[in-house]
Amino acid sequence: MKVKIEDRIEEMKAVWMEEERNEVKMIDQRYLPSELKFFTAEDHDDIYRSIKEMMVRGAPAIGVTAAYGMAQAKVQENDMEEAAEHIKSARPTAYDLFYAVDYMMDDLEEPVKAAEGYSEKVIEKCRKIGAHGAGLIESRDNVLTHCNAGALATVDYGTALAPMRIAHRKGKEIHVYVDETRPRLQGARLTAWELYNEDIPHSVIVDNASGHYMSRGEVDLVIVGTDRIVANGDIANKIGTYEKAVLAKENDIPFYVAAPVTTYDGTTEKGEDIPIENRDDDEVKEINGSLIMPEGSPVKNPAFDVTPVEYISGYITEKGVFGPEELKDMF
Amino acid sequence: MKVKIEDRIEEMKAVWMEEERNEVKMIDQRYLPSELKFFTAEDHDDIYRSIKEMMVRGAPAIGVTAAYGMAQAKVQENDMEEAAEHIKSARPTAYDLFYAVDYMMDDLEEPVKAAEGYSEKVIEKCRKIGAHGAGLIESRDNVLTHCNAGALATVDYGTALAPMRIAHRKGKEIHVYVDETRPRLQGARLTAWELYNEDIPHSVIVDNASGHYMSRGEVDLVIVGTDRIVANGDIANKIGTYEKAVLAKENDIPFYVAAPVTTYDGTTEKGEDIPIENRDDDEVKEINGSLIMPEGSPVKNPAFDVTPVEYISGYITEKGVFGPEELKDMF
Repeated sequence: MKVKIEDRIEEMKAVWMEEERNEVKMIDQRYLPSELKFFTAEDHDDIYRSIKEMMVRGAPAIGVTAAYGMAQAKVQENDMEEAAEHIKSARPTAYDLFYAVDYMMDDLEEPVKAAEGYSEKVIEKCRKIGAHGAGLIESRDNVLTHCNAGALATVDYGTALAPMRIAHRKGKEIHVYVDETRPRLQGARLTAWELYNEDIPHSVIVDNASGHYMSRGEVDLVIVGTDRIVANGDIANKIGTYEKAVLAKENDIPFYVAAPVTTYDGTTEKGEDIPIENRDDDEVKEINGSLIMPEGSPVKNPAFDVTPVEYISGYITEKGVFGPEELKDMF
Repeated sequence: MKVKIEDRIEEMKAVWMEEERNEVKMIDQRYLPSELKFFTAEDHDDIYRSIKEMMVRGAPAIGVTAAYGMAQAKVQENDMEEAAEHIKSARPTAYDLFYAVDYMMDDLEEPVKAAEGYSEKVIEKCRKIGAHGAGLIESRDNVLTHCNAGALATVDYGTALAPMRIAHRKGKEIHVYVDETRPRLQGARLTAWELYNEDIPHSVIVDNASGHYMSRGEVDLVIVGTDRIVANGDIANKIGTYEKAVLAKENDIPFYVAAPVTTYDGTTEKGEDIPIENRDDDEVKEINGSLIMPEGSPVKNPAFDVTPVEYISGYITEKGVFGPEELKDMF
């Protein structure tokens, strides 16, 4: 991804390794968009903290951070069983984290090379998602996205943002509507930051306004990421995704889900079988630490929602774009 | 409305007159929900400021404030043409404000009595909206509302909130989902405050979550207010109303609009003829004065949206509940 630093533009990844010093470096996403700060992990305890404290976020980026952390631990001649256990415990529900740690445990001969290989595979998948998805975007299209499925979450390119990035680099004149994505505001904070840095024309809107622009014919397609695609094609993604999907269908706007094929969970039959995590009340009650509602009022804060397959036009993957009916064959 | 003050509960209006001291008193809504402060207007310059600086908001409450301000000015033996001009200039686009000032100019014999009469008419309409609307709510219903169409906006009862208030007072066990209503958060700040004070069970949710609860069968009906009902039945209301209406229809949930019959604008044919005001970028960029997105990212901030008549189940008015097909006869 491109990042504006003072008067220059740098090509950068969300997380990377500096092999000579055996350091894992990352953009500390907690300070974005107001400050670009970096965090240097010097051992697997720092790696644990970076994941636990959400300096790095997004399943693919967390996986890559874990892979680099394992390589670093090996170079430092740590007890690798202990390092693996510690890094995994940073987010006990993160599939990519477990996968990355186990992947590294299987290949500790040349650990830095293995971790770089892991990272490159993640990036390459996103680049391909971008290349396939860019074909769906015409010049002068308005694209709407929700949350942040960008380079910050996937080391580079992103999933949902990859098609926009590549369409823009190919010279297509696009404009992106960025849902702010309450409660955690990943759209306003992170997606807008990525688009600003890439000079991709965009507008941040409140989540309430996307329907308005759809109804006026000012949105040509919607692209979102996803945490899980289940057997029947239903998806789970950030709260509000379902709303955008219904509004897109009502206004005859194509609604695409961008994700690597590993997001497919064939063991879960349908969306309603996915448990929905309820997160902390304070995410709703406070913004930047400032209370926005009566202290005594209750809150409900579901982190995700389920978008049924009938609202989904297609799945943009590293293997191509597939319709819901092709889903089982593809994955 | 009921307001909790320390260890007691007081019956209170959003704005009222203390005749003996010739003072107009109001809840200063800028400090809600964190502080309950009152503003005392001692002359028509204070009245002007209270409207201009949004201590009082909502067209009916602004109208009543203006009526009391005119009565106060008359008692103070001011030049009434000058007072009328000054008060009107506080919000040059507010129809109720103009109407209230002109109403008072026509009846300056007993000005306080006239202003009290004006206020009582506004309250009585809301009480009737509540009585008619309460008939639509069953015990154990979950009602969803957007923005604040409550007592704070209408002196007492509210429009959209009146049916919930009266259903609750009649002993119906209801629960209200309160959309926080970005960008200005009137749901989280004001509607939640009103429901908290009336001990009506409720949950504040981000605007993104209402579709989730609708899709799970956890919303039985939606009631919203409106700024304008046009000839074909389309309405204009706070940004996000259209999204709720589409989601309600998709999930077979009745969607009601509560408003006095004066909200009907028979001179405008259809919703798309209503101009949509774009408000200041800072409403999106900052929350409680704190920046939530890149300074360099552009914003779009439409204040209202249009909900077409086909999404509306009925209009709850002081004259009863009417379906879209009965609209022309009713108004």
